[in-house]
Amino acid sequence: MTYERQNISRLAPYTPGEQPKPGDRQTVKLNTNENPYPPGQAVVDALRSIDGETLRRYPPPTAAQCRQTIAQAHSLDPKQVIVTNGGDELLRLAITVFCQPRADNPSGAATGGLGIATPSYSLYEVLAAIHDTPLTSVPLLDNFELPDSFAGKLNDAGCRLAMVVNPHAPSGRLGPLDRLERIAQQFKGVLLIDEAYVDFATRDALPLLATDKGLKNVLLLRTLSKGYSLAGLRLGYGLGHPDLIAALDKARDSYNTDAVAQTLAIAALNNRQQAAQTWQAVTKERDRLTGALADRGYRVYPSQANFLLAQAPRPAKTIYESLKSKGVLVRYFDQDPLRDKLRITVGTPQQNDALLTALDSL
Amino acid sequence: MTYERQNISRLAPYTPGEQPKPGDRQTVKLNTNENPYPPGQAVVDALRSIDGETLRRYPPPTAAQCRQTIAQAHSLDPKQVIVTNGGDELLRLAITVFCQPRADNPSGAATGGLGIATPSYSLYEVLAAIHDTPLTSVPLLDNFELPDSFAGKLNDAGCRLAMVVNPHAPSGRLGPLDRLERIAQQFKGVLLIDEAYVDFATRDALPLLATDKGLKNVLLLRTLSKGYSLAGLRLGYGLGHPDLIAALDKARDSYNTDAVAQTLAIAALNNRQQAAQTWQAVTKERDRLTGALADRGYRVYPSQANFLLAQAPRPAKTIYESLKSKGVLVRYFDQDPLRDKLRITVGTPQQNDALLTALDSL
Repeated sequence: MTYERQNISRLAPYTPGEQPKPGDRQTVKLNTNENPYPPGQAVVDALRSIDGETLRRYPPPTAAQCRQTIAQAHSLDPKQVIVTNGGDELLRLAITVFCQPRADNPSGAATGGLGIATPSYSLYEVLAAIHDTPLTSVPLLDNFELPDSFAGKLNDAGCRLAMVVNPHAPSGRLGPLDRLERIAQQFKGVLLIDEAYVDFATRDALPLLATDKGLKNVLLLRTLSKGYSLAGLRLGYGLGHPDLIAALDKARDSYNTDAVAQTLAIAALNNRQQAAQTWQAVTKERDRLTGALADRGYRVYPSQANFLLAQAPRPAKTIYESLKSKGVLVRYFDQDPLRDKLRITVGTPQQNDALLTALDSL
Repeated sequence: MTYERQNISRLAPYTPGEQPKPGDRQTVKLNTNENPYPPGQAVVDALRSIDGETLRRYPPPTAAQCRQTIAQAHSLDPKQVIVTNGGDELLRLAITVFCQPRADNPSGAATGGLGIATPSYSLYEVLAAIHDTPLTSVPLLDNFELPDSFAGKLNDAGCRLAMVVNPHAPSGRLGPLDRLERIAQQFKGVLLIDEAYVDFATRDALPLLATDKGLKNVLLLRTLSKGYSLAGLRLGYGLGHPDLIAALDKARDSYNTDAVAQTLAIAALNNRQQAAQTWQAVTKERDRLTGALADRGYRVYPSQANFLLAQAPRPAKTIYESLKSKGVLVRYFDQDPLRDKLRITVGTPQQNDALLTALDSL
C-alpha cells in the first residue's frame, strides 16, 4: 500500500546535474552553469556581518528591505517584486497559483494547464506533474526559436500559464523581444519568462513590464544563482504586475527566504558592478570557447548565456563519459534533439583550457 | 480579470506574528516563540567558516551530509530523513504528496483531504486551501487534548493526511504517546506529528518509528527554529518510514535547502549540548513565569513548550494592546476558544521580568 497520490507515484523526479563531493575542488565542473568566479567582496563582507541574533529571529516574512533593493535595481515598485527560495520556487508557485490540478477521475477537465516549448528546462514538466496539471509541449524550431503558433496552440489547449526560458536553455539563444511581446498579447494566461541567464545577455524583457505596454500577464524570473555567483544561497525573485505578485505572495511559504539569503542578496544587488565584471569575463570566454570548439569540428549554437550547446563531431555521450573520466564534468541530455550535443558551462580561462586539453586528448 | 485559481483568490493568507523592524532590538519580543538565547558557538563558528566558493556552487541537492547527521542524532537511517526549508516546507510537501486536490467543478470528490484538530497552528488550514484539498476540523477537548473520536472522524471524511502538533500549539500541552500510537493505528492515512516544540518537552514521539511498532504512516516534523535558535535560517526536517520520505523527496524543490543552512544545521546537531543548555534555562523560566502569571490571576495551561497559554483575568485583547504600547509583544488570537487568552513566549529572565513589570503597570 502506498499513501502518496497516484501522480506522485508515477513521477520521474527532476535529475540535477552531478555535484562533486563536498570538499572536492579538483573536478573541472562545467555542468550546472554556475558562475566560475566567486561572489563579490561586498557579499562576503555581508556574510561576515551576520550575527547570532539574526539567526535566532524569524526573518522578515515579506523580505521588505530585499524587495525594496530589487525594485530599485530595476526601477520598479516593491509591489512588483516577490522574493523566492531560488528561481525554482517561483516556478512552483506560478504553477500552484495559476494552473488547475486535474481531478483524479478520468473525466476531469484537461484544461487549465501549463504550456512549454521543448526542449527546455526539464524541471517545468516535473513541476506540472507534481501539481497534476495538464502539460502542453510545443516543439521549438530547429534553431531553438519559438514558433509563431506558440500562443495559439497554448490557447487551444486552455493553458493558464506558459513558461519560456530566455536566453533559452540549453541552447543559449536569446529570442527577440517583439516575439515575446506578441506572445504575451495573444496568450490568454500568464507568460512567465525565465531570465535565469539574462545577466550574460545583451538585453532583458523588462521593457514588457512598462505600464504603457498594458501587459498584465507577464512575469519575469530572475535568480542570483548564476549572475551573482550565489547558487549555494537559493535566492531568486519574480517581477510582474502587482496583481500577479499579490496572488503568488498568498501561496508562498510564510518565511520562504532566510535571513542570510535576504542580507546577502541586498549586498549583491547594491554592488552589481562587482558581479558585472564577472559577466564581462564570462562573455569574453564564451566567445573564445565558441571559436575553439568550432575549430575542433563542433557546431556551436549562438549563446547569450553562460553556457554553450555544442553539436559534437562524434557520439556526444561517449565524449561526455570520456571527459568525466578525466575529471571534466559537462552536461549530456539523453533525449531528442539533444542526444548529439553537449551543454558546456563557460568556465574560467583555466577551466576552459582544461576542457579543451581534455577534448584534444580523447 | 484575474489569472489565479479561484481557491487562491478566495484565500485569506497566513498571518505571521508581528516582527519588529530590522535593527530594532529594544522590543521585548515574546510573540513568535523564538528561543531567547543565541545559537551555540559551534553554529556561529560554522557560519564564519563559509567561504565564497560554498556560496558560488549549488548546494548538495539531497543534503546528504546533513541527513546523515540528523539520522545519527536520532539513531535512524538517512533514508528516514528529509531536510526542508523550515518545518513549513514539510507541511506543504505532505499536503502536496498525500492530499487530493478538488476538481474546480462542484461535483468533485470531497475526500482525500487533510484532517486537523482545532485550535492549532493556523498554517495547516491555509496550506489545505492553497492545495484546494478538503479540510476536516475536529475540535479539541477543553483541555486541548485530542478526542478519542479523532481518527474515526478523519477516516469517515476520507482524509489521507492528519496534522497534529505535539506539544500542542498554542496551549503547550504534551499529549500522551499511547494516544498518538492508537491514532496512527486507526487512521488510514498518514499521521504527521508536528514536533516543532519537542526540544522543550520531556519526551518525543520517536518511539513510534521503531520497526517493531509496524507503523508505516507516521511522519515526525522537527525544526531548528525553536530549540536551536535558528529561526532566521529556515531549516526543518521530517522523520518517517523510508517510503514516506521517498515520496516527499520526489516533490520537493530540487535544491530546497541552501548551503549555509545545511552547514549550520550539521554544526548545531553535532553540538546538541550547547542548545540543550538553553532548553534547561527556558523550562526553568517557564515554571517561574507560570507561577508569576498565576499569582496575577491568570489561568495558565500546563506547557511543555517554550510558550504559555494564559487565560486572562481581564479582556485579553486589551492587555495585548496595552503591552504592545509598552514595547512588549505577545500573541493574541482573535478566535474562539482563544479570545480570552494570550500566548506568551518564554523569554530570558530579564524579558520575563519586563513582561511582568509591564503587566503590573497596566
